[in-house]
Amino acid sequence: MLRIEHLEDLTVERKNEIISRNSYSFQDTMSITLEILNSLKQDPVGEICKEYAPFKQNLEISELKVSEEEIELAHRQIDRELLKALQVAAVNITRFHEAQLERPQWFTELSPGLIAGRITLPLSRVGVYIPGGRAIYPSSSLMNIIPAKVAGVKHVIACSPPGEGFTVKPEILVSATMAGAESIYKLGGAWAMGSMAYGFLGVPKVDKIVGPGSTWAMAAKIAVFGVTDIDMPAGPSEGFIISDGSSQHKFLTWDFLAQLEHDPQAAAIFVTTSAEEARELAELAEKLLPTLSRKGIVEDSIKNAAILVCKTLDDALDFANKYAPEHLQLSVRDPLSYLGRVKNAGSVFLGDYSPIAAGDYASGTNHVLPTGGAAKSFSGLSTDDFLKKITFQKLTLDALKNLAPTVMTIAEAEGLECHKKSIKVRL
Amino acid sequence: MLRIEHLEDLTVERKNEIISRNSYSFQDTMSITLEILNSLKQDPVGEICKEYAPFKQNLEISELKVSEEEIELAHRQIDRELLKALQVAAVNITRFHEAQLERPQWFTELSPGLIAGRITLPLSRVGVYIPGGRAIYPSSSLMNIIPAKVAGVKHVIACSPPGEGFTVKPEILVSATMAGAESIYKLGGAWAMGSMAYGFLGVPKVDKIVGPGSTWAMAAKIAVFGVTDIDMPAGPSEGFIISDGSSQHKFLTWDFLAQLEHDPQAAAIFVTTSAEEARELAELAEKLLPTLSRKGIVEDSIKNAAILVCKTLDDALDFANKYAPEHLQLSVRDPLSYLGRVKNAGSVFLGDYSPIAAGDYASGTNHVLPTGGAAKSFSGLSTDDFLKKITFQKLTLDALKNLAPTVMTIAEAEGLECHKKSIKVRL
Repeated sequence: MLRIEHLEDLTVERKNEIISRNSYSFQDTMSITLEILNSLKQDPVGEICKEYAPFKQNLEISELKVSEEEIELAHRQIDRELLKALQVAAVNITRFHEAQLERPQWFTELSPGLIAGRITLPLSRVGVYIPGGRAIYPSSSLMNIIPAKVAGVKHVIACSPPGEGFTVKPEILVSATMAGAESIYKLGGAWAMGSMAYGFLGVPKVDKIVGPGSTWAMAAKIAVFGVTDIDMPAGPSEGFIISDGSSQHKFLTWDFLAQLEHDPQAAAIFVTTSAEEARELAELAEKLLPTLSRKGIVEDSIKNAAILVCKTLDDALDFANKYAPEHLQLSVRDPLSYLGRVKNAGSVFLGDYSPIAAGDYASGTNHVLPTGGAAKSFSGLSTDDFLKKITFQKLTLDALKNLAPTVMTIAEAEGLECHKKSIKVRL
Repeated sequence: MLRIEHLEDLTVERKNEIISRNSYSFQDTMSITLEILNSLKQDPVGEICKEYAPFKQNLEISELKVSEEEIELAHRQIDRELLKALQVAAVNITRFHEAQLERPQWFTELSPGLIAGRITLPLSRVGVYIPGGRAIYPSSSLMNIIPAKVAGVKHVIACSPPGEGFTVKPEILVSATMAGAESIYKLGGAWAMGSMAYGFLGVPKVDKIVGPGSTWAMAAKIAVFGVTDIDMPAGPSEGFIISDGSSQHKFLTWDFLAQLEHDPQAAAIFVTTSAEEARELAELAEKLLPTLSRKGIVEDSIKNAAILVCKTLDDALDFANKYAPEHLQLSVRDPLSYLGRVKNAGSVFLGDYSPIAAGDYASGTNHVLPTGGAAKSFSGLSTDDFLKKITFQKLTLDALKNLAPTVMTIAEAEGLECHKKSIKVRL
């Protein structure tokens, strides 16, 4: 049976082992990535033709852009139920991200005649990476593109690697265009990241790249940081479930397994004040495991799982704050009253009917969240990521006169003579 | 005489030359930096004792922390005028950053029973790097520490390399404690960044490192990114001044020179609709140059300067938006009416009595701003940099029932069976 541990009995080493969970490593992929980016910079067309030669001869660069016809076809091909589901999810995601927007501009008079303020502007152009491969994640298009559009980004483009027949899957084309992508390019990995960062192969240069991907795509995203802005690198998904035994163990067992089915490196932590519930969950999880469609993945990721019994919910919350999980589910009575004790988490799921799976898709919150403990420093993706802020100031002559002794004294101390003169000549 | 060019006559090459100005490179310093960080990780105490041996024998680790006595001494030693000036500047900086704070928490009901919201929390612990060396920049302590304190960060610590007599200059100690640093450590470069990122040498591990530094310090800051969060790497300072000839050329000449005195790699662009003013400014700058106390630096940086005559202010603003300057000074009549045309800049200085030098020290806005064109994607330092946002959601059973078809359909399309089950068991 799955091991059940007691939180208070954990050794420092075991606690650290749980807290310092997996992260993706880019070391193995980085040197090859840099080589590809170098070739791309020297000869973008030559490099992509070489890369695509095995499955697309005589490539025309204009063919990299998904055509109107392909998008129309995708809309005819996509499953009607899925289309409707994506539309509902998009409405909630749009509404929640609209609620995030703060003051577009403001100013304050700091002292008579000294006005200082700030204006908020959207980035001009954003590139979104949408992974290809066998699995498709249309929810990812919505989560990455909608916040940019809500923030007011005029131009959102997307890149996704083509599959069979040099096409991109209809689910990706439909979700990306529904969310607001104005054009989609059949590019993956370093070829996509390099083209968006530098403006190669007909892809316009963007101010920021967001979106998940394989370790290859992420290594390339990190490699172009500085040339353009990027979102934070995402690690394996993780969920931390706190229970007081008031929920049903079968709910929580599926939540626990749902976290683990993401990725062989995913992690799930379950902490409960009820020893009985811990046992029930461990037993049920064990029983369900062989029946799961993603059994192989869960068998791998379960090594990163922990089932813990604790004395009080405060102990559980303390441990959660140290762990700083991507997803924190509070399956407790009166969950809202515990929200104020959460210090480090990506997103919090309150009560019996708010499982993590709802937030992954359709509750409106973003599923792009800090992993691996990054929730101590970072926030999940939001409209903030697509806005920049410009400060401004305006002083009257009198205000400058009032401020002059201050400015000139500090400039003097810092040895900046011209700064001092720039004030003095105006008095 | 300094060359005067016409904006409309610039070749594409010359325009690109102006726009693609200098940035600091970390390539030469990175490999040695990584070596130091490795030694530090293996044996922090041994590494720092070895490094400090030439000027501090028998180092006790507790001596790395600046003592109460040293801070009291610094307060007695600091120039009274400078102390007063820093206090005035601190008041303005505090007030402006207080005005930046948005809603600490909010929620919205997206549909009946589906509540989603967000809480904003300060980071728990922040480390600020304050460069040492011959020049001292007490304004930098204020600009980096005050926003963190205003955001609500409980623990702000600082690191600064010790100079002669194993002491940190009183201006640094006073400005850092005045701004809110709770402890200061005598560490510089990779030793400082490594200790703050990993929690070595008695320095507590921080959630984010901010602050300027030499290319060595910045290479180390970039090297620890991921272990902790960092602010954006800063490049050489730059100013872009737009004039309609309504100001006095001697004001603008000092502003132009003030920009250039920062650093041999600094840049200054002056664009005016008045050919006469361009000539006057070039002549006066030429005349003043040999008299400047930082003549050597300005003689170097002036190669990155450009004096341009344009036809209309719109042309000048278009070019400024392409350049995306750190500082943008609008020395024009009715400057506020042009603010809406600014798309890319770190901070904007409006009118005759708002020179860049005022914002560098005391107008309240932050002088930590995006350089090298990064203003297209990034914002200057603000309270935002020290806050993280946690989303939350709470659904009623009815709300989950309403959302269930959406979630289950997308989970099905993405092949995530347990996600689907996690919803289904609750219905």
